[in-house]
Amino acid sequence: QENPDFHYTQGEKDSLRSVYEKLESIQRKTDKFNVYFNMQAGFDVNANDETTTEFKARQLRLEIRGNLTNNVFYRFRHRLNKATNAQSLDNLAKATDMMYVGYNASDKFSMIFGKQCLAWGGFEFDLNPIDIYEYSDMIEYMDNFMLGANFIFRPAKNHEINLQVTDTRNNRIADEYGAEMLINSGIEPARSPMTYIVNWNGSMLDDKLQTRWSYGVEHEAKKYNTQKIAIGTKLNLPAFKLAVDYMRSDDDMDRSLIATGYTTQYYKKNAVAKDVDYNTFIAKAELPFADKWNFFVKGMYETAGLPKDDNFGKDFRKAYGYFAGIEHRPFKEEDLKLFLVYVGRKYTFADALKQNNSDIFKDHNTNRVSLGMIYRIKPF
Amino acid sequence: QENPDFHYTQGEKDSLRSVYEKLESIQRKTDKFNVYFNMQAGFDVNANDETTTEFKARQLRLEIRGNLTNNVFYRFRHRLNKATNAQSLDNLAKATDMMYVGYNASDKFSMIFGKQCLAWGGFEFDLNPIDIYEYSDMIEYMDNFMLGANFIFRPAKNHEINLQVTDTRNNRIADEYGAEMLINSGIEPARSPMTYIVNWNGSMLDDKLQTRWSYGVEHEAKKYNTQKIAIGTKLNLPAFKLAVDYMRSDDDMDRSLIATGYTTQYYKKNAVAKDVDYNTFIAKAELPFADKWNFFVKGMYETAGLPKDDNFGKDFRKAYGYFAGIEHRPFKEEDLKLFLVYVGRKYTFADALKQNNSDIFKDHNTNRVSLGMIYRIKPF
Amino acid sequence: QENPDFHYTQGEKDSLRSVYEKLESIQRKTDKFNVYFNMQAGFDVNANDETTTEFKARQLRLEIRGNLTNNVFYRFRHRLNKATNAQSLDNLAKATDMMYVGYNASDKFSMIFGKQCLAWGGFEFDLNPIDIYEYSDMIEYMDNFMLGANFIFRPAKNHEINLQVTDTRNNRIADEYGAEMLINSGIEPARSPMTYIVNWNGSMLDDKLQTRWSYGVEHEAKKYNTQKIAIGTKLNLPAFKLAVDYMRSDDDMDRSLIATGYTTQYYKKNAVAKDVDYNTFIAKAELPFADKWNFFVKGMYETAGLPKDDNFGKDFRKAYGYFAGIEHRPFKEEDLKLFLVYVGRKYTFADALKQNNSDIFKDHNTNRVSLGMIYRIKPF
Repeated sequence: QENPDFHYTQGEKDSLRSVYEKLESIQRKTDKFNVYFNMQAGFDVNANDETTTEFKARQLRLEIRGNLTNNVFYRFRHRLNKATNAQSLDNLAKATDMMYVGYNASDKFSMIFGKQCLAWGGFEFDLNPIDIYEYSDMIEYMDNFMLGANFIFRPAKNHEINLQVTDTRNNRIADEYGAEMLINSGIEPARSPMTYIVNWNGSMLDDKLQTRWSYGVEHEAKKYNTQKIAIGTKLNLPAFKLAVDYMRSDDDMDRSLIATGYTTQYYKKNAVAKDVDYNTFIAKAELPFADKWNFFVKGMYETAGLPKDDNFGKDFRKAYGYFAGIEHRPFKEEDLKLFLVYVGRKYTFADALKQNNSDIFKDHNTNRVSLGMIYRIKPF
Repeated sequence: QENPDFHYTQGEKDSLRSVYEKLESIQRKTDKFNVYFNMQAGFDVNANDETTTEFKARQLRLEIRGNLTNNVFYRFRHRLNKATNAQSLDNLAKATDMMYVGYNASDKFSMIFGKQCLAWGGFEFDLNPIDIYEYSDMIEYMDNFMLGANFIFRPAKNHEINLQVTDTRNNRIADEYGAEMLINSGIEPARSPMTYIVNWNGSMLDDKLQTRWSYGVEHEAKKYNTQKIAIGTKLNLPAFKLAVDYMRSDDDMDRSLIATGYTTQYYKKNAVAKDVDYNTFIAKAELPFADKWNFFVKGMYETAGLPKDDNFGKDFRKAYGYFAGIEHRPFKEEDLKLFLVYVGRKYTFADALKQNNSDIFKDHNTNRVSLGMIYRIKPF
Repeated sequence: QENPDFHYTQGEKDSLRSVYEKLESIQRKTDKFNVYFNMQAGFDVNANDETTTEFKARQLRLEIRGNLTNNVFYRFRHRLNKATNAQSLDNLAKATDMMYVGYNASDKFSMIFGKQCLAWGGFEFDLNPIDIYEYSDMIEYMDNFMLGANFIFRPAKNHEINLQVTDTRNNRIADEYGAEMLINSGIEPARSPMTYIVNWNGSMLDDKLQTRWSYGVEHEAKKYNTQKIAIGTKLNLPAFKLAVDYMRSDDDMDRSLIATGYTTQYYKKNAVAKDVDYNTFIAKAELPFADKWNFFVKGMYETAGLPKDDNFGKDFRKAYGYFAGIEHRPFKEEDLKLFLVYVGRKYTFADALKQNNSDIFKDHNTNRVSLGMIYRIKPF
């Protein structure tokens, strides 16, 4: 029905312009607000002493993020399955992973302030938690979300240096360890329980080689520090990906409490283990074997040692992980993966310890097969 | 101000098309995201031993739902007045009622996966919790939100068959009953604590007759199951509505712990009651007596029995409910009801039990008048 | 590329109209939904016995509000660092500050119903909590968010009268004080534990003089009430602002438990203090000394007295506050303030009390310097 004699009025032309303006104002409003539900859930078959089955959700986190202005951005991430009471030092909930705002001063420099993820390196650490079937003990027993500031430098394209300073804990030390354990261990609170991290996130050779390297010091208590290093390096080819992480933690006083769990039982004394070292090696290989399909294997080897304690000694506890799985992305436009994975773990102890304390130091292993989904739902 | 000599440029015509595209992209974004606050709150007059008054909120739940693609949908519902710590079996919070995604494979078949409402039948169970002034004991003491999968078949128009399989609990059994009670009762954890439900939601005679029928088995522990049946049928005429529910639960070991509350006191032993049966009859009649106005009466009769226990016997506890009320919808476009309701409850016990244990088995009744509002607020 | 021979079809003209309609429907949807993260966080230097440093977040509250129709509005505010379990009286979480809906009946009259902020006067009370560096003890120990109704009259332009009736507590009295303390104190629960407040929010002389005045009665228990008065008056000039608050609380039984904290220790009896009075004087002066820059000083003087108790007497405890700070708004369009503030507090006790109980009644003071940000983030 072409009608060549029909024309718009000037008013109608103005209307079109006002439509534009309204539309842009709405678009600005909607662009600022991006909502995600990060979910991993599945059906587990656990083949241990008995074979048991259960549905289990490993992750459920709400995330809201976006740009407030051209230079200012924010990010909020909050676990929906964690208590929300305030912690005694930073006054925020364990449920809240992140609540920060950031400012892009230039192409070369940004800064963020608020509760944030510690800038530890390593590729296991770097992934969205929903993409992890089971964490290494090193990361599982870390406390990763702290209040503080991060200064981000980009000295060259594809290279980022983070200088981060945060609280060392969410809670005051006495609430974390218990007052009695601190007294038994001769430990006094730090004046400035702060953590300092330097981190390099790099990408080279057309993104084929990537780095997540970091070094940091956590000031735990008067005269007690933890030093951590993480060297994550990834080969990223279209048909093959290999990420190798090495992490080490040197704790003047035990931070993760893995070793302390054994020393308190062995010595029957409620005290923090001292001069502990933890090492973790992780390798994950991925083979995208068809469109929308991925195969991976992952191996983990971890040690805990008390080299200055003659009863425990070096690497008294060894932990192994061996995973393999298939992942399928059914929809191009949705960030959804269906998975079938095997997760195996094994824990062994030094023979000397096992001889007289076989109840405490018992080698054991676990096996799990899971069928489920990883979905970064984007409702807005 | 018609101006026949005024014409659009080709560029302006293109602009109109780009307006279209932008608009549609925004509309897609906003359509995916639908937010509700489900709220019931009111002013209560309780006429029991003493007459007391108070403002009380019976429900406050945040809900977010929508379609992610043409075939994929999601739903999240979370109580804002419940603890958010993870439960030991499904690793989700009691606060989270639902967090599921679904896929419409065809007109005939859909499936959902995630935390969801159990597909028990009955019309009381079927309503949004904000529309309930007080639940029957049967539903009040149920645990209704579980992780699992639901397979939905639509063999004919207006008829839906659900086949659902979920965890039986949110927590491991020892966390729900306590380890001591389980040992005292000789109960061992199930290998696969799963619940299986089949449900028929039907609509016939131009929606005038509706069904919510279901049968299910909850595997509670080794050799212990609960069987539930629910037969909800509704006559749905413009001027008169009548919903009649019958529900029965046969518990090898007491699931709701209503009976156990009495047996532990009577026998002075911390053990789970066994071979319990619960019956519930509910009838609710509604008379929409004017535009925007509704009158209803509701009656409930419930029994708890321990037929194999000679001291307790069949139907040792009887519970009655008798409700009446007026509901008013002031606004057509808002899902808001103002209400004035009377809620009466009465509990009686078998005479034999009352004779020597009048402190435990005391007939009693409660009366409440509430003036308040039910509002499914839709902020987006 | 002007092309005078090109014309729109009638269909295209209709399209433009349909664009309009869609656009308006989306705009209505987005206008209803306004989201805020209210955050205050900073780096603290505490110079007390020892000098300590820490990052600390003082506030983190999610807020969602808007208009549902021309006359109906809602508001939700929820702390992200507070427990979410239901309280025993109002059945809502302490985390939820507000969840109310309101109705504007006319220019002269509105009403709201739901959980809301009590309508106490005073300018410290009136501010968004993120704008408070540290509350006076009076407000810090109040319970401010209650379920109930508020009737708002606007008899003249710029003048608002609130008549509010709410629950007196979130919890039943026994859950708040403990059953033992109530028995020891001879206190029985009220039949109607309600609070009644009348409040005047005024603005005169072109907004240069403002009032936040209120009087209220909290019915605490049988025969026990608390009466509160608050007189907040503000001089609001472009180059100088001065807000002066006087608040007084007369408690038949101690509501805030500040006094009770001392009497229980002094008398070694777990009982509620009776006939307590609290007084608070606050003055805050602001000098906007440059574009985007503000300087303020604030002084507080507070007393707690037990005039009928000869051992304690009038004003047995005095609390002082002295704050000064600089605030900077870097962006015009964002509700963000960077601050550097000093916060000093001092507590002193009557000499007679200190003589024999120097451990309980020890004069003390605290000093803090904070560098941080107040950000009312508006992600949507």
